[in-house]
Amino acid sequence: MTGAEILLSEIAEQPAVLERIRADDAVVELAARVAAAPPRLVRLAAHGSSDNAATYGIYAFGRLARWTAVRDSISLSVYDGMRPAARGDLAIALSQSGETPDVVAWLESMTEAGALTVAVTNNPSSPLARAATAVLPLGAGEERSVAATKTYTAELAVLARLAAHAGGDGPRFDEHLGAAIELASGLLSTLPAAVEAPATALAWAERLMVTGRGPEYATAREIALKLTELCRLGGVAMTATDLAHGPIAAIDDRFPVWVAAGRDAAQDAVREAVTRIRESGAPLVVAGPGAAELGGTWVIELPPAPDPVLSPLLSVLPGQLFAVALARAKGLDPGAPRNLRKVTFAR
Amino acid sequence: MTGAEILLSEIAEQPAVLERIRADDAVVELAARVAAAPPRLVRLAAHGSSDNAATYGIYAFGRLARWTAVRDSISLSVYDGMRPAARGDLAIALSQSGETPDVVAWLESMTEAGALTVAVTNNPSSPLARAATAVLPLGAGEERSVAATKTYTAELAVLARLAAHAGGDGPRFDEHLGAAIELASGLLSTLPAAVEAPATALAWAERLMVTGRGPEYATAREIALKLTELCRLGGVAMTATDLAHGPIAAIDDRFPVWVAAGRDAAQDAVREAVTRIRESGAPLVVAGPGAAELGGTWVIELPPAPDPVLSPLLSVLPGQLFAVALARAKGLDPGAPRNLRKVTFAR
Repeated sequence: MTGAEILLSEIAEQPAVLERIRADDAVVELAARVAAAPPRLVRLAAHGSSDNAATYGIYAFGRLARWTAVRDSISLSVYDGMRPAARGDLAIALSQSGETPDVVAWLESMTEAGALTVAVTNNPSSPLARAATAVLPLGAGEERSVAATKTYTAELAVLARLAAHAGGDGPRFDEHLGAAIELASGLLSTLPAAVEAPATALAWAERLMVTGRGPEYATAREIALKLTELCRLGGVAMTATDLAHGPIAAIDDRFPVWVAAGRDAAQDAVREAVTRIRESGAPLVVAGPGAAELGGTWVIELPPAPDPVLSPLLSVLPGQLFAVALARAKGLDPGAPRNLRKVTFAR
Repeated sequence: MTGAEILLSEIAEQPAVLERIRADDAVVELAARVAAAPPRLVRLAAHGSSDNAATYGIYAFGRLARWTAVRDSISLSVYDGMRPAARGDLAIALSQSGETPDVVAWLESMTEAGALTVAVTNNPSSPLARAATAVLPLGAGEERSVAATKTYTAELAVLARLAAHAGGDGPRFDEHLGAAIELASGLLSTLPAAVEAPATALAWAERLMVTGRGPEYATAREIALKLTELCRLGGVAMTATDLAHGPIAAIDDRFPVWVAAGRDAAQDAVREAVTRIRESGAPLVVAGPGAAELGGTWVIELPPAPDPVLSPLLSVLPGQLFAVALARAKGLDPGAPRNLRKVTFAR
């Protein structure tokens, strides 16, 4: 298999990985333990795609369990030696490999600070797993591509399931998750054709803005990262409101925009941003439920998720496939990004 | 005055604005009140440059007052109607205009949730100020340019001063702040010449990566935003560790990198990133204390700040001036970005 074929096969594996996570009792057991003494704060730490999953975690824990979740500062703990008051907190480190040194060091610092520590990782025998009190395995199988795809959606599902079960809504959530996985399966057969037209038309793009709001901000960050990694372009993620606040000035016919549109409470903010983007003359891809109604140069209509909090499991799929298609249109091999190592050894 | 002249004059005003903040008793009074009952959590909310100041706030409160500070989710409160347990928390909203509707709505939700609310704004009679229990004015004078410069550094100084005084180290911090302001004054006379060479050489750039770590991550975000707004390029901010984790793959001789280098605990992570960037062949601007030692295509050596936490007041200055110079080199008017409104009315 070529690098591109490996990447596409990993993208295609996502429904099967998500089904395994849906059946994993480890999440349910940890949720029960955590719900018995709800955390003051959920601290999340990660890099790269896992950090984008942490962005989603802020929303999933906030919405499903009504807790405050945050992306914690790694540098304060690891470089400056600060030990915040973290007793009673839940500290979750996310890393596909489980080997990223500063994420391991952060989790160790959280143990010292009195938090309950959890590793979300694809390698349950990694240093990160050994440093944690509880391990939630991704069970995604080996991820051979350097660009994370199946481990990203696996992290979303693990975080949301933990939040839903801890928040007392586990069974209903698992039913919704099952329905979302079926939708994902269907999309993976139709989306590859849908992303071809914008990928071919935008082969010249050197910069691309990706926007979303609420849970879809995580999607925007992840798509921007995939585009930057695979297509060597400047992929800039902004919430729809931040985009309207300033960077809209930069948008013109050489600065395409991808909108991750959700059918959720934030959709009016996204609609306003889309109106302003259309005025700017930028090539515009709108993907999501209600995309057709918003309108764009290219419209990728997605089925609504059973719950808006599950929408990011679907809305990232066209972005993953578009990044592969755009890399190919640019003549790059999306399976083999230059310089990219799978594990960050920087500390 | 042309738009560019107005912007440059506002950049030049920064030392005078910072001196006024250094003498402002309102910060000291609020710090005493807050220190008497230290917050469980400092929640920060903002958009655009003010959100980049909030990124700095995470570091300043974490380092100077040893509290946990976070950029809070606006969308959970404002769109989803969630009310987190926020009694005993300090909620700080930052907005130059004080009129951004969803930031005002967030602060109102924090009052309902039981937090002590603070508005950091350039307009003490704005809706945001009226919604807050305490107001910390920026006192920056009218900011006529749509791109924020003097209000950004003013926000940094207000946050750091509040943290230092609350943390019991106010007098020493104010002394250090005075020394940093003197350094800033000196830099503003030498930097305009220093940024000309990279700006002229990089006029073709359509994308640019900006990196930093620890307190300089806020600087990286703010410089990336200035470049995106003023120069219509894809400005991507990454921590030095995130850059090495994936996007390093995208870096090549058409993807310049700006490094905000600090002389701080995170400098080894930055050194490793610089080594990898140099291997990639990307045009590289390194700005900061120790820049000469790190090396780059262009080196902008800055004096070390009296304390690393004050370094971002200096390290953003070459980025602001570079953005203006690059916009001019591209034939754009940096004083009049297209489409940009000063106040975000999106909610």
